[in-house]
Amino acid sequence: MPEPRIHGREFVRTFFTTPTAEQGVDDSAKKLRKAIQLRGMQAPDVWVPDNEDATAPNMRDEGAENIAEVVADDGAGFPGEIHPRVVWHRDDPSTRYKGLQHMLEIADPEKGAVDDIDGFVIPEVGDIDDWKKADEFITIVENEYGLEEGSLKMSVIIESGQAELAMGELRDEMGKPTNNLERLFLLVDGEVDYTKDMRAITPTGGLPEWKELRHNTSRGASAAGLISVDGPFDDIRDVEGYKDRITANAAMGMLGIWSLTPGQVEVANKTPLPPQEGYWTVEADGRTVELDDEGDAQVYNGERIDLEKEGETYELEVGGDELVLDEDELREELVDLTAYVPSMDDIVDSMEEFESAKEAGKGAIAMSRSATVRIDGVEIDIQSDRMWDEATYQAMMTPVKLFKDVYSNRPDQHDALAEMYGEGVVERALDVGL
Amino acid sequence: MPEPRIHGREFVRTFFTTPTAEQGVDDSAKKLRKAIQLRGMQAPDVWVPDNEDATAPNMRDEGAENIAEVVADDGAGFPGEIHPRVVWHRDDPSTRYKGLQHMLEIADPEKGAVDDIDGFVIPEVGDIDDWKKADEFITIVENEYGLEEGSLKMSVIIESGQAELAMGELRDEMGKPTNNLERLFLLVDGEVDYTKDMRAITPTGGLPEWKELRHNTSRGASAAGLISVDGPFDDIRDVEGYKDRITANAAMGMLGIWSLTPGQVEVANKTPLPPQEGYWTVEADGRTVELDDEGDAQVYNGERIDLEKEGETYELEVGGDELVLDEDELREELVDLTAYVPSMDDIVDSMEEFESAKEAGKGAIAMSRSATVRIDGVEIDIQSDRMWDEATYQAMMTPVKLFKDVYSNRPDQHDALAEMYGEGVVERALDVGL
Amino acid sequence: MPEPRIHGREFVRTFFTTPTAEQGVDDSAKKLRKAIQLRGMQAPDVWVPDNEDATAPNMRDEGAENIAEVVADDGAGFPGEIHPRVVWHRDDPSTRYKGLQHMLEIADPEKGAVDDIDGFVIPEVGDIDDWKKADEFITIVENEYGLEEGSLKMSVIIESGQAELAMGELRDEMGKPTNNLERLFLLVDGEVDYTKDMRAITPTGGLPEWKELRHNTSRGASAAGLISVDGPFDDIRDVEGYKDRITANAAMGMLGIWSLTPGQVEVANKTPLPPQEGYWTVEADGRTVELDDEGDAQVYNGERIDLEKEGETYELEVGGDELVLDEDELREELVDLTAYVPSMDDIVDSMEEFESAKEAGKGAIAMSRSATVRIDGVEIDIQSDRMWDEATYQAMMTPVKLFKDVYSNRPDQHDALAEMYGEGVVERALDVGL
Repeated sequence: MPEPRIHGREFVRTFFTTPTAEQGVDDSAKKLRKAIQLRGMQAPDVWVPDNEDATAPNMRDEGAENIAEVVADDGAGFPGEIHPRVVWHRDDPSTRYKGLQHMLEIADPEKGAVDDIDGFVIPEVGDIDDWKKADEFITIVENEYGLEEGSLKMSVIIESGQAELAMGELRDEMGKPTNNLERLFLLVDGEVDYTKDMRAITPTGGLPEWKELRHNTSRGASAAGLISVDGPFDDIRDVEGYKDRITANAAMGMLGIWSLTPGQVEVANKTPLPPQEGYWTVEADGRTVELDDEGDAQVYNGERIDLEKEGETYELEVGGDELVLDEDELREELVDLTAYVPSMDDIVDSMEEFESAKEAGKGAIAMSRSATVRIDGVEIDIQSDRMWDEATYQAMMTPVKLFKDVYSNRPDQHDALAEMYGEGVVERALDVGL
Repeated sequence: MPEPRIHGREFVRTFFTTPTAEQGVDDSAKKLRKAIQLRGMQAPDVWVPDNEDATAPNMRDEGAENIAEVVADDGAGFPGEIHPRVVWHRDDPSTRYKGLQHMLEIADPEKGAVDDIDGFVIPEVGDIDDWKKADEFITIVENEYGLEEGSLKMSVIIESGQAELAMGELRDEMGKPTNNLERLFLLVDGEVDYTKDMRAITPTGGLPEWKELRHNTSRGASAAGLISVDGPFDDIRDVEGYKDRITANAAMGMLGIWSLTPGQVEVANKTPLPPQEGYWTVEADGRTVELDDEGDAQVYNGERIDLEKEGETYELEVGGDELVLDEDELREELVDLTAYVPSMDDIVDSMEEFESAKEAGKGAIAMSRSATVRIDGVEIDIQSDRMWDEATYQAMMTPVKLFKDVYSNRPDQHDALAEMYGEGVVERALDVGL
Repeated sequence: MPEPRIHGREFVRTFFTTPTAEQGVDDSAKKLRKAIQLRGMQAPDVWVPDNEDATAPNMRDEGAENIAEVVADDGAGFPGEIHPRVVWHRDDPSTRYKGLQHMLEIADPEKGAVDDIDGFVIPEVGDIDDWKKADEFITIVENEYGLEEGSLKMSVIIESGQAELAMGELRDEMGKPTNNLERLFLLVDGEVDYTKDMRAITPTGGLPEWKELRHNTSRGASAAGLISVDGPFDDIRDVEGYKDRITANAAMGMLGIWSLTPGQVEVANKTPLPPQEGYWTVEADGRTVELDDEGDAQVYNGERIDLEKEGETYELEVGGDELVLDEDELREELVDLTAYVPSMDDIVDSMEEFESAKEAGKGAIAMSRSATVRIDGVEIDIQSDRMWDEATYQAMMTPVKLFKDVYSNRPDQHDALAEMYGEGVVERALDVGL
């Protein structure tokens, strides 16, 4: 009888898939063997031996065996969770039955892998009754092998309109006596198949944005206590594009993303964490541009904003629109155009400042931040204030909680975190909010 | 036995919160006493003595007493509705029980306030069964004090994914025999706590847009006959930003917004009403710019559009893209780039014109509007036509209905409205569509 | 006993409405008689004799008679489906009963039209129970006239928040023994009335975007096996605007749109099909611009991008932002800025290439496309790669499936298709993916 599993993660930044069996090579499991050795920032929070789309259909039986073998050999040392993806389709019972067979193969205690298998990923689910079929098969696997019911997690790929709607019903369905849907873990968007299911067409064949899908997935996760993860980002060379997507997702509450390479894993493990150094930005006619910190001032060196001083008057031109302003008006305009992106250290400072104020009986305080901004050689001092109350404090706690979750679940990343932030900042972040 | 309450408002523009008790001052209820004296455009449609986030936890018992006392003293003269916010949390029964106690305190007939209490605001609600718990407590309050069941309204703050989903179930749940959810009144977004609940992160710590949430709140209100209200706008100095948010909300059907100061109340009471004077706008390379009415022409004085005439040919440059056009092509281009924002008087004109056409047996008529546009000294006459049918007429009626609702519910704003529009326009607006 | 109907269409591009009866003209059915003669690209996939908003209320009884008469005369030769719109309103039983009477009139076998009536369009529906009332009336019509239950399709206009929410419940409701909701066919957005129902206000009176509504309609159709159609585009002169809307809709999976004129029908029949010729585009500071194919190179002739070569260094300026790059960096930058819009022929090429690879046992291949780009006389060769796997292939199949559906359902458009693409391309497109 195995130990009851403890699924400790509150956050998942990375969901990394690996083909399970390749034809025409010496060792068909070579890619699995390589991936399971990943450590540190290149190792994902969730590793997904992918016995579905990444593996050719005629190799999937061998793929299931490979998963069992490789995880039995090296799973104990892997720093993330391991969730193989098996085949499934809402419209095809033979695919679903094949999925059951592969799960039985992978989780068979005689293969020795099951202690390091944290759950399964089910693609192509349909409406909620289809999710229940997958849940039931996992219950059967657990029962067959004497595992505690619910101990294997279940994650689903949202790649149909049906599944998108099903996420709205989870609170009603989880906890019913005839299912074990409490095993649900990740809601993962799969935009390529979703595009097919929605029959969407773009001129270039590129993927639509699917912003509503991502919102609904994030909301579904929030409502049901699950974790949302965005789908693959195809253009592996485009690191900036991948970071932009992660940042846009984070603003919707979707803090995890699919990764196709260890390089993407590293980017996606680091990007949601607060930066090492804070910096100022300015809105330059529709584009957000980082100011250069030149020590004595934050400097705009682009050509989309011009500033000139004539006597007591300033002429500010942003993208062809000219404003004539006095000093106070200019300051106000620049406060509106600029923003500060706080570092981890800055965030911890603010949390501590608010905690002290709270202890002193204050419910709300103004957090100030000031800078000298220089544009075309003209300098002006600005200061922005933001009111913090309990709700602000709680909302700002999310990146800190993420950091703590990473720290407690990923000892293999402690060195990288210490290198990124310095030991002092790491300790302060771990202490805040306790 | 009190009179049955009549809740007459179809629209709510403003939802103004005030702390209920402050420590370390002579009179802990001072802010309540000041707020309840507001009249005219500075007085909100709904006033919310806020016994939750705006008031320190250890002051909330006193806050409940203060509400009862201040409303008993001066509630009869307050021109808007009064809906105190009490404490509540979907995850915490002790907070919910405290909310019941505060409602019992505030509504106690012996305190003399209840006749001027229109309902309660319940924050941090979860799924629909959690809403029912709050509804049940209000029923108990009503029963305890001999009030008619359903006579106290209930408004909720939508600040969780659960609550967002619950809004989709209201039509199924309202009217069931075991609840009094017909008492529901406002659906109010609370974006700071929602951001926390969704675990969203933005680099600057600023609030995400949450456009989908606002759509879903507006839709939930539309489907269930309720009124939707947007959450607080933190940057109190930024009047233009507040107006922009109100305008964007209105285009989603969310006509109300939270106000943190009497100054914000005034802006939010006025902004959704049609303007006093109509004006032309032009799309200048991604920015909508108001044209200057110089009497003989509508003039573009910016630098994002250039226009030159060479013989019979025009060169129009918008943001670096140059078009060479004859007069008719130029006219067509300018018709596309420009738009007219009608005044209240213009709207009433159009409504009356359509009503006459309908009486004469026509189902659809073209509404025309013409102007002379001048760019870089070059003038051209343009005319835009829009087909109006019954559906257009009904859709254009919304701002007029809002005006009428304000006029009939807020006699204290009659002077301000007459000053804004002139008595003649006010009378015509009240007469149209009867 | 009539033949069981076969409703073969998987896609509907066009939904064209025609008034059913006009007062004060010789033949009140003149517009119906003209519309039913449309053929080829000017004939819609679904023709809607509109006995609701397009027809004056006092003419609708005569309109119902006109529909029966005109369809009896000429319906057999009409190349699209015929779905009259009858009156309905969720809030008004007398309107609903009138709708039943009109359906009984139109479908009366003695009138001779019913064999060419494919279904009815029900406007102004409310929540799902309201949809069931309309379904029941159609069942009564079928039963009364000995038609097979479910043989008349039902399409609905989504023009209320209630109806938007109802689309989320279709999978639960279709197939229940007490209704025939399997007859559902089109989900059509009606944005003017929706704007009224949501009480939205825009400054100019123009329609809001309602992007969330369109997503939810497309998703509802996807989940329930139906077809989604966008509402009317008022500005009939604005052909580019209409095309842009169709393209934006397609990226959400909404491949059909309302048409108000035969000219709009033609545009909407052609726009969702892949273009005859592929072309390159470039992102020019927020605007997507088509490059000019000058034979030896793809040329940018606008002023938003500047490129200069100095020795081995390139200066690229996009909208005022200057980058200094070596050749490889420039190439990478241009690969990011450009995109290729494939022709029908290109798409068929790619499908066939992937099919061959699959047969040869490969699961994924890179599709390459190269070009010489010229900006300000400076030339550079670029190549973009995209990984195709089974999911990509399936998603790219949508436009081909649309083409095949058009081809098999609309023989009257074969000539136009052959003229657009050439016979060879048409044949290849029909053969691919079999």
